[in-house]
Amino acid sequence: MTRDGTEAAEQRPAQTATAPGRLYGVGVGPGDPELITLKAVRVLAGADVVGWFAKAGNGSNARAAAAAHLRPGVEELPLLYPVTTEIATADAAYRDAIDRFYDASAAAVAGHLAAGRTVAVLSEGDPLFYGSYMHIHVRLADRFEAEVVAGVTAMSGCWSLAGLPVTQGDDVLTVLPGTLAEAELARRLAGTDAAVVMKIGRNLAKVRRALAAAGRLADAVYVERGTTTAGAVHRLADKPGDDAPYFSLVLVPGWRGRR
Amino acid sequence: MTRDGTEAAEQRPAQTATAPGRLYGVGVGPGDPELITLKAVRVLAGADVVGWFAKAGNGSNARAAAAAHLRPGVEELPLLYPVTTEIATADAAYRDAIDRFYDASAAAVAGHLAAGRTVAVLSEGDPLFYGSYMHIHVRLADRFEAEVVAGVTAMSGCWSLAGLPVTQGDDVLTVLPGTLAEAELARRLAGTDAAVVMKIGRNLAKVRRALAAAGRLADAVYVERGTTTAGAVHRLADKPGDDAPYFSLVLVPGWRGRR
Repeated sequence: MTRDGTEAAEQRPAQTATAPGRLYGVGVGPGDPELITLKAVRVLAGADVVGWFAKAGNGSNARAAAAAHLRPGVEELPLLYPVTTEIATADAAYRDAIDRFYDASAAAVAGHLAAGRTVAVLSEGDPLFYGSYMHIHVRLADRFEAEVVAGVTAMSGCWSLAGLPVTQGDDVLTVLPGTLAEAELARRLAGTDAAVVMKIGRNLAKVRRALAAAGRLADAVYVERGTTTAGAVHRLADKPGDDAPYFSLVLVPGWRGRR
Repeated sequence: MTRDGTEAAEQRPAQTATAPGRLYGVGVGPGDPELITLKAVRVLAGADVVGWFAKAGNGSNARAAAAAHLRPGVEELPLLYPVTTEIATADAAYRDAIDRFYDASAAAVAGHLAAGRTVAVLSEGDPLFYGSYMHIHVRLADRFEAEVVAGVTAMSGCWSLAGLPVTQGDDVLTVLPGTLAEAELARRLAGTDAAVVMKIGRNLAKVRRALAAAGRLADAVYVERGTTTAGAVHRLADKPGDDAPYFSLVLVPGWRGRR
């Protein structure tokens, strides 16, 4: 090393020669901080940057579930949705805004990776099961080393809290978003052994009607905020009113329903 | 306390007054010992007895995944299937033998619980998602405190290994056992966005034909022993031959398939 700073700087490898960092999509589980995996904990302990998605003005549920495992002072990369993701997604302007947001998010992650930093992007539940992380993965996995750490899904958290055997033997399970049209929901509910209806929120009245039309309302169980300390389980037929948070689920057991 | 042992024994609470132990169904994840949750590790550390299912003469995959977290010298309760569970289950004699086996298994667990011991019964993946633990749960949960610890499913382990985004937005996911009839498989594969076909084993040739009939063969990915060190991922169309282990899966992605 010389005493001349400028010369020393010139002797360092050029920035483009920095080995790129590794991208992790980390499933943090359904909400209970204990339902995170050992692998997720290890990856978070080694991450230089931790990214998470949230609506602007809201906290990140994934970050809350992982908070105990973030290194003090770790660099965080909030990825804040410009618009709600709960509205109908058929609108072209909405799709464009979301695509631009994912492009910008991926670019921000790529900047850290190119600079040699390991980036862990958090997902509630499991990253590749309805998770936002996959939008980063498909944009970057051909340019950077990327690894997905599987997590416990919200639906597993919910049926475990309810103690409800969902599928056994040759059961068919259908996972349905509550955003589907009522007739479509009813048709699919009638044609499956077990079902999970996600994205309940404002769709509960419609989901209830579809279950009734399919002859499955008596079996259905409603689980609100499945694996947080505020979790609650009701037979759907016993739940008064149709108000429900977005992250509630309706479960229709297959196996026990046939005993 | 008297010096007379007999009198002292009579002063102790009768055995029937022992507080019963607690039953846990513990999901240990898809195979990789790092994909177990912190909660599962905690429960295993506190269990007096650890039960696990296996075929007689075979090891338990669940036990292997959890082995690093069993207390040295913990009492183990092997629950050994009297017959294979891979054969067609329509046969009445088969069903009777299996029911008697689950009755006897539950009685063995209940004996430990009644004696005040905490019992953790292991499940590969998630206990209430095609897991044997649920047969214990439905027999004992009304008599003993029982809690289910959700786990990472085999399918999450497999699609994470493959880096394959499976469902997004309003996608419908259908989980199908490969044991279904070919026409039924084809009909269901044609009518869903994303699919997971479990229990491949001897059913791979049939599953391949059903995927072709449904127009989904080109999208399908075959994952063998998803989250063990021997895991392998292939496009199904590129896999030569139809030999496959029972615990392989076929994945049909929804979202990326439509990009």
